[in-house]
Amino acid sequence: MQAAPVKATETIRPMVAADREPLRVLLEAVSNFTREEVETALELVDEWLKTGEKSGYLTYVQEQGDDPAARRITGYVCFGETPLTVGTFDLYWVAVDSALRSRGHGQALLKFAEAEIKNRGGRLFMIETSSQPTYAGTVAFYEKAGYKLAARIQEFYNERDDKLIFSKKL
Amino acid sequence: MQAAPVKATETIRPMVAADREPLRVLLEAVSNFTREEVETALELVDEWLKTGEKSGYLTYVQEQGDDPAARRITGYVCFGETPLTVGTFDLYWVAVDSALRSRGHGQALLKFAEAEIKNRGGRLFMIETSSQPTYAGTVAFYEKAGYKLAARIQEFYNERDDKLIFSKKL
Repeated sequence: MQAAPVKATETIRPMVAADREPLRVLLEAVSNFTREEVETALELVDEWLKTGEKSGYLTYVQEQGDDPAARRITGYVCFGETPLTVGTFDLYWVAVDSALRSRGHGQALLKFAEAEIKNRGGRLFMIETSSQPTYAGTVAFYEKAGYKLAARIQEFYNERDDKLIFSKKL
Repeated sequence: MQAAPVKATETIRPMVAADREPLRVLLEAVSNFTREEVETALELVDEWLKTGEKSGYLTYVQEQGDDPAARRITGYVCFGETPLTVGTFDLYWVAVDSALRSRGHGQALLKFAEAEIKNRGGRLFMIETSSQPTYAGTVAFYEKAGYKLAARIQEFYNERDDKLIFSKKL
Protein backbone atom coordinates (compact mmCIF):
# COMPACT_ATOMS: atom_id res chain seq x y z
CA MET A 1 0.00 0.00 0.00
CA GLN A 2 1.28 3.42 -0.97
CA ALA A 3 1.41 6.13 1.64
CA ALA A 4 -1.03 8.93 0.94
CA PRO A 5 0.83 12.06 -0.14
CA VAL A 6 1.26 14.26 2.92
CA LYS A 7 0.40 17.89 2.32
CA ALA A 8 3.37 19.97 3.42
CA THR A 9 2.51 22.08 6.45
CA GLU A 10 2.28 25.68 5.37
CA THR A 11 2.07 28.47 7.91
CA ILE A 12 2.00 32.25 7.84
CA ARG A 13 3.50 33.97 10.88
CA PRO A 14 4.98 37.38 11.84
CA MET A 15 8.44 37.89 10.36
CA VAL A 16 11.41 37.74 12.75
CA ALA A 17 15.03 38.87 12.33
CA ALA A 18 16.25 35.40 11.32
CA ASP A 19 13.97 35.58 8.25
CA ARG A 20 15.67 38.66 6.81
CA GLU A 21 18.47 36.92 4.92
CA PRO A 22 16.32 34.18 3.28
CA LEU A 23 13.79 36.87 2.42
CA ARG A 24 16.47 39.05 0.81
CA VAL A 25 17.57 36.06 -1.31
CA LEU A 26 13.96 35.35 -2.29
CA LEU A 27 13.36 39.01 -3.28
CA GLU A 28 16.53 39.21 -5.36
CA ALA A 29 15.45 36.16 -7.34
CA VAL A 30 12.12 37.73 -8.37
CA SER A 31 12.84 38.72 -11.96
CA ASN A 32 10.61 41.77 -12.26
CA PHE A 33 11.88 43.52 -9.11
CA THR A 34 14.58 46.11 -9.74
CA ARG A 35 17.45 46.60 -7.31
CA GLU A 36 15.73 49.79 -6.05
CA GLU A 37 12.49 47.89 -5.46
CA VAL A 38 14.27 45.17 -3.47
CA GLU A 39 15.98 47.85 -1.37
CA THR A 40 12.67 49.62 -0.75
CA ALA A 41 11.01 46.34 0.26
CA LEU A 42 13.87 45.65 2.72
CA GLU A 43 13.63 49.16 4.19
CA LEU A 44 10.01 48.48 5.17
CA VAL A 45 10.95 45.06 6.54
CA ASP A 46 13.68 46.68 8.66
CA GLU A 47 11.17 49.17 10.10
CA TRP A 48 8.97 46.23 11.04
CA LEU A 49 11.89 44.36 12.67
CA LYS A 50 12.83 47.53 14.59
CA THR A 51 9.46 48.70 15.91
CA GLY A 52 6.89 45.99 15.09
CA GLU A 53 3.25 47.03 14.81
CA LYS A 54 4.18 50.66 15.52
CA SER A 55 6.09 50.78 12.23
CA GLY A 56 2.85 50.52 10.27
CA TYR A 57 4.46 47.85 8.06
CA LEU A 58 2.88 44.59 9.17
CA THR A 59 5.12 41.86 7.79
CA TYR A 60 4.36 38.15 7.71
CA VAL A 61 6.26 35.27 6.16
CA GLN A 62 4.87 32.07 4.73
CA GLU A 63 6.88 28.92 5.37
CA GLN A 64 6.64 25.34 4.31
CA GLY A 65 8.06 21.99 5.36
CA ASP A 66 7.20 19.13 7.68
CA ASP A 67 10.53 18.95 9.42
CA PRO A 68 10.69 21.92 11.84
CA ALA A 69 14.46 22.03 11.35
CA ALA A 70 14.16 22.32 7.58
CA ARG A 71 11.31 24.75 7.09
CA ARG A 72 11.85 27.34 4.43
CA ILE A 73 10.27 30.67 3.50
CA THR A 74 8.07 30.49 0.42
CA GLY A 75 6.78 34.08 0.41
CA TYR A 76 5.89 37.14 2.42
CA VAL A 77 3.40 39.96 2.61
CA CYS A 78 3.77 43.52 3.96
CA PHE A 79 0.77 45.80 4.48
CA GLY A 80 -0.47 48.50 6.83
CA GLU A 81 -3.11 51.05 7.66
CA THR A 82 -2.97 54.12 5.44
CA PRO A 83 -2.27 57.23 7.54
CA LEU A 84 -5.15 59.72 7.83
CA THR A 85 -7.77 57.19 6.72
CA VAL A 86 -10.41 55.32 8.68
CA GLY A 87 -10.10 51.62 7.92
CA THR A 88 -8.14 51.77 4.67
CA PHE A 89 -5.05 49.57 4.31
CA ASP A 90 -2.35 49.49 1.65
CA LEU A 91 -0.56 46.44 0.34
CA TYR A 92 3.09 47.48 0.33
CA TRP A 93 4.64 44.26 -0.89
CA VAL A 94 3.86 40.64 -1.65
CA ALA A 95 6.34 38.16 -3.10
CA VAL A 96 6.59 34.42 -3.61
CA ASP A 97 9.68 32.29 -4.21
CA SER A 98 10.17 32.47 -7.98
CA ALA A 99 10.47 28.66 -8.17
CA LEU A 100 7.02 28.27 -6.59
CA ARG A 101 4.86 30.58 -8.71
CA SER A 102 1.25 29.84 -9.66
CA ARG A 103 0.66 27.29 -6.90
CA GLY A 104 -1.58 29.44 -4.73
CA HIS A 105 1.07 30.76 -2.34
CA GLY A 106 0.47 34.36 -3.32
CA GLN A 107 -3.32 34.01 -3.12
CA ALA A 108 -2.93 32.50 0.37
CA LEU A 109 -0.81 35.47 1.45
CA LEU A 110 -3.39 37.96 0.14
CA LYS A 111 -6.24 36.11 1.86
CA PHE A 112 -4.22 36.11 5.10
CA ALA A 113 -3.67 39.89 4.83
CA GLU A 114 -7.39 40.47 4.16
CA ALA A 115 -8.34 38.47 7.26
CA GLU A 116 -5.82 40.36 9.41
CA ILE A 117 -7.14 43.68 8.11
CA LYS A 118 -10.72 42.70 8.89
CA ASN A 119 -9.65 41.67 12.41
CA ARG A 120 -8.18 45.14 12.82
CA GLY A 121 -11.41 46.81 11.73
CA GLY A 122 -10.26 47.57 8.20
CA ARG A 123 -12.83 47.99 5.43
CA LEU A 124 -10.84 48.74 2.25
CA PHE A 125 -7.63 47.21 0.86
CA MET A 126 -5.72 49.14 -1.81
CA ILE A 127 -3.06 47.80 -4.16
CA GLU A 128 -0.94 49.84 -6.55
CA THR A 129 0.96 48.40 -9.46
CA SER A 130 2.51 49.30 -12.78
CA SER A 131 0.88 49.12 -16.21
CA GLN A 132 4.12 47.81 -17.76
CA PRO A 133 3.75 44.52 -19.69
CA THR A 134 6.13 42.82 -17.22
CA TYR A 135 3.42 43.32 -14.58
CA ALA A 136 0.63 41.65 -16.57
CA GLY A 137 0.94 38.52 -14.42
CA THR A 138 0.72 40.65 -11.28
CA VAL A 139 -2.44 42.36 -12.54
CA ALA A 140 -4.02 38.98 -13.37
CA PHE A 141 -3.09 37.78 -9.87
CA TYR A 142 -4.93 40.70 -8.20
CA GLU A 143 -7.93 40.35 -10.49
CA LYS A 144 -8.15 36.64 -9.67
CA ALA A 145 -8.22 37.61 -5.98
CA GLY A 146 -11.25 39.84 -6.59
CA TYR A 147 -9.58 43.25 -6.82
CA LYS A 148 -11.14 45.85 -9.13
CA LEU A 149 -9.34 48.62 -10.97
CA ALA A 150 -10.29 51.80 -9.07
CA ALA A 151 -8.13 54.29 -10.95
CA ARG A 152 -5.30 54.69 -13.44
CA ILE A 153 -2.77 57.53 -13.13
CA GLN A 154 -1.23 58.26 -16.51
CA GLU A 155 2.60 58.19 -16.66
CA PHE A 156 2.92 58.07 -12.89
CA TYR A 157 5.96 55.79 -12.62
CA ASN A 158 7.56 57.06 -15.80
CA GLU A 159 6.66 58.04 -19.35
CA ARG A 160 4.53 55.18 -20.76
CA ASP A 161 4.29 53.60 -17.28
CA ASP A 162 0.96 54.28 -15.58
CA LYS A 163 -0.02 53.50 -12.01
CA LEU A 164 -2.94 51.09 -11.69
CA ILE A 165 -4.83 51.31 -8.41
CA PHE A 166 -6.81 48.23 -7.42
CA SER A 167 -9.15 48.01 -4.45
CA LYS A 168 -11.35 45.53 -2.62
CA LYS A 169 -14.01 46.18 -0.01
CA LEU A 170 -13.54 43.79 2.89
CA MET B 1 3.59 113.90 -0.68
CA GLN B 2 2.49 110.49 0.45
CA ALA B 3 5.00 107.66 0.53
CA ALA B 4 4.27 104.97 -2.04
CA PRO B 5 3.05 101.82 -0.31
CA VAL B 6 6.02 99.53 0.13
CA LYS B 7 5.32 95.94 -0.82
CA ALA B 8 6.32 93.79 2.09
CA THR B 9 9.31 91.66 1.23
CA GLU B 10 8.17 88.08 0.90
CA THR B 11 10.64 85.26 0.67
CA ILE B 12 10.49 81.47 0.52
CA ARG B 13 13.47 79.65 2.04
CA PRO B 14 14.33 76.19 3.44
CA MET B 15 12.77 75.64 6.85
CA VAL B 16 15.12 75.69 9.88
CA ALA B 17 14.62 74.48 13.45
CA ALA B 18 13.66 77.95 14.74
CA ASP B 19 10.62 77.89 12.40
CA ARG B 20 9.09 74.79 14.00
CA GLU B 21 7.20 76.51 16.82
CA PRO B 22 5.65 79.33 14.72
CA LEU B 23 4.77 76.71 12.09
CA ARG B 24 3.06 74.52 14.70
CA VAL B 25 0.99 77.53 15.84
CA LEU B 26 0.10 78.33 12.22
CA LEU B 27 -0.97 74.72 11.52
CA GLU B 28 -3.11 74.49 14.64
CA ALA B 29 -5.01 77.62 13.61
CA VAL B 30 -6.00 76.13 10.23
CA SER B 31 -9.62 75.22 10.86
CA ASN B 32 -9.96 72.21 8.57
CA PHE B 33 -6.86 70.38 9.85
CA THR B 34 -7.59 67.74 12.45
CA ARG B 35 -5.22 67.14 15.37
CA GLU B 36 -4.01 63.97 13.62
CA GLU B 37 -3.31 65.91 10.42
CA VAL B 38 -1.29 68.55 12.29
CA GLU B 39 0.72 65.79 13.99
CA THR B 40 1.36 64.08 10.64
CA ALA B 41 2.46 67.37 9.08
CA LEU B 42 4.89 67.95 11.98
CA GLU B 43 6.29 64.40 11.70
CA LEU B 44 7.34 65.13 8.11
CA VAL B 45 8.77 68.50 9.14
CA ASP B 46 10.81 66.78 11.87
CA GLU B 47 12.22 64.32 9.35
CA TRP B 48 13.29 67.29 7.23
CA LEU B 49 14.90 69.05 10.20
CA LYS B 50 16.73 65.83 11.12
CA THR B 51 18.08 64.70 7.75
CA GLY B 52 17.36 67.46 5.23
CA GLU B 53 17.14 66.51 1.56
CA LYS B 54 17.74 62.85 2.42
CA SER B 55 14.41 62.76 4.26
CA GLY B 56 12.51 63.15 0.99
CA TYR B 57 10.33 65.82 2.63
CA LEU B 58 11.55 69.08 1.13
CA THR B 59 10.18 71.79 3.39
CA TYR B 60 10.19 75.52 2.72
CA VAL B 61 8.67 78.40 4.68
CA GLN B 62 7.34 81.65 3.33
CA GLU B 63 8.00 84.74 5.42
CA GLN B 64 7.04 88.36 5.26
CA GLY B 65 8.13 91.63 6.81
CA ASP B 66 10.52 94.47 6.04
CA ASP B 67 12.21 94.54 9.42
CA PRO B 68 14.54 91.51 9.53
CA ALA B 69 13.98 91.28 13.29
CA ALA B 70 10.21 91.09 12.91
CA ARG B 71 9.74 88.75 9.99
CA ARG B 72 7.02 86.21 10.40
CA ILE B 73 6.04 82.96 8.73
CA THR B 74 3.01 83.25 6.48
CA GLY B 75 2.94 79.71 5.13
CA TYR B 76 4.91 76.62 4.19
CA VAL B 77 5.07 73.84 1.64
CA CYS B 78 6.34 70.26 1.95
CA PHE B 79 6.87 68.04 -1.08
CA GLY B 80 9.18 65.30 -2.34
CA GLU B 81 10.01 62.81 -5.02
CA THR B 82 7.72 59.78 -4.98
CA PRO B 83 9.75 56.61 -4.31
CA LEU B 84 10.05 54.18 -7.25
CA THR B 85 9.03 56.79 -9.82
CA VAL B 86 11.08 58.65 -12.38
CA GLY B 87 10.38 62.37 -12.01
CA THR B 88 7.09 62.25 -10.10
CA PHE B 89 6.73 64.40 -6.99
CA ASP B 90 4.03 64.48 -4.33
CA LEU B 91 2.74 67.51 -2.51
CA TYR B 92 2.67 66.40 1.12
CA TRP B 93 1.47 69.60 2.71
CA VAL B 94 0.80 73.26 2.00
CA ALA B 95 -0.64 75.71 4.51
CA VAL B 96 -1.09 79.46 4.83
CA ASP B 97 -1.69 81.53 7.96
CA SER B 98 -5.47 81.41 8.39
CA ALA B 99 -5.58 85.22 8.78
CA LEU B 100 -3.94 85.67 5.35
CA ARG B 101 -6.05 83.43 3.12
CA SER B 102 -6.94 84.27 -0.50
CA ARG B 103 -4.10 86.76 -0.98
CA GLY B 104 -1.96 84.61 -3.23
CA HIS B 105 0.37 83.21 -0.57
CA GLY B 106 -0.68 79.63 -1.28
CA GLN B 107 -0.40 80.07 -5.04
CA ALA B 108 3.12 81.50 -4.57
CA LEU B 109 4.09 78.45 -2.48
CA LEU B 110 2.78 76.05 -5.15
CA LYS B 111 4.60 77.93 -7.93
CA PHE B 112 7.78 77.81 -5.86
CA ALA B 113 7.43 74.04 -5.39
CA GLU B 114 6.81 73.54 -9.13
CA ALA B 115 9.98 75.49 -10.00
CA GLU B 116 12.03 73.50 -7.47
CA ILE B 117 10.69 70.23 -8.88
CA LYS B 118 11.56 71.28 -12.44
CA ASN B 119 15.07 72.20 -11.28
CA ARG B 120 15.39 68.69 -9.86
CA GLY B 121 14.32 67.10 -13.15
CA GLY B 122 10.74 66.42 -12.08
CA ARG B 123 8.02 66.08 -14.71
CA LEU B 124 4.79 65.39 -12.79
CA PHE B 125 3.37 66.89 -9.57
CA MET B 126 0.63 64.97 -7.76
CA ILE B 127 -1.73 66.31 -5.11
CA GLU B 128 -4.19 64.27 -3.07
CA THR B 129 -7.10 65.75 -1.19
CA SER B 130 -10.47 64.87 0.30
CA SER B 131 -13.87 65.14 -1.39
CA GLN B 132 -15.44 66.42 1.86
CA PRO B 133 -17.30 69.76 1.52
CA THR B 134 -14.83 71.36 3.95
CA TYR B 135 -12.15 70.86 1.29
CA ALA B 136 -14.07 72.62 -1.49
CA GLY B 137 -11.86 75.70 -1.08
CA THR B 138 -8.76 73.53 -1.30
CA VAL B 139 -10.00 71.90 -4.51
CA ALA B 140 -10.74 75.33 -6.03
CA PHE B 141 -7.25 76.44 -5.01
CA TYR B 142 -5.59 73.53 -6.89
CA GLU B 143 -7.82 73.98 -9.94
CA LYS B 144 -6.92 77.69 -10.05
CA ALA B 145 -3.25 76.63 -10.08
CA GLY B 146 -3.86 74.48 -13.16
CA TYR B 147 -4.18 71.03 -11.59
CA LYS B 148 -6.53 68.53 -13.23
CA LEU B 149 -8.44 65.75 -11.52
CA ALA B 150 -6.58 62.56 -12.50
CA ALA B 151 -8.57 60.06 -10.42
CA ARG B 152 -11.10 59.65 -7.65
CA ILE B 153 -10.89 56.76 -5.17
CA GLN B 154 -14.31 56.04 -3.68
CA GLU B 155 -14.53 56.06 0.13
CA PHE B 156 -10.76 56.10 0.52
CA TYR B 157 -10.49 58.30 3.61
CA ASN B 158 -13.73 57.08 5.14
CA GLU B 159 -17.27 56.18 4.16
CA ARG B 160 -18.58 59.10 2.07
CA ASP B 161 -15.08 60.62 1.92
CA ASP B 162 -13.34 59.98 -1.40
CA LYS B 163 -9.74 60.70 -2.31
CA LEU B 164 -9.32 63.16 -5.18
CA ILE B 165 -6.01 62.92 -7.01
CA PHE B 166 -4.93 66.01 -8.94
CA SER B 167 -1.92 66.23 -11.21
CA LYS B 168 0.00 68.70 -13.31
CA LYS B 169 2.64 68.04 -15.95
CA LEU B 170 5.58 70.37 -15.38
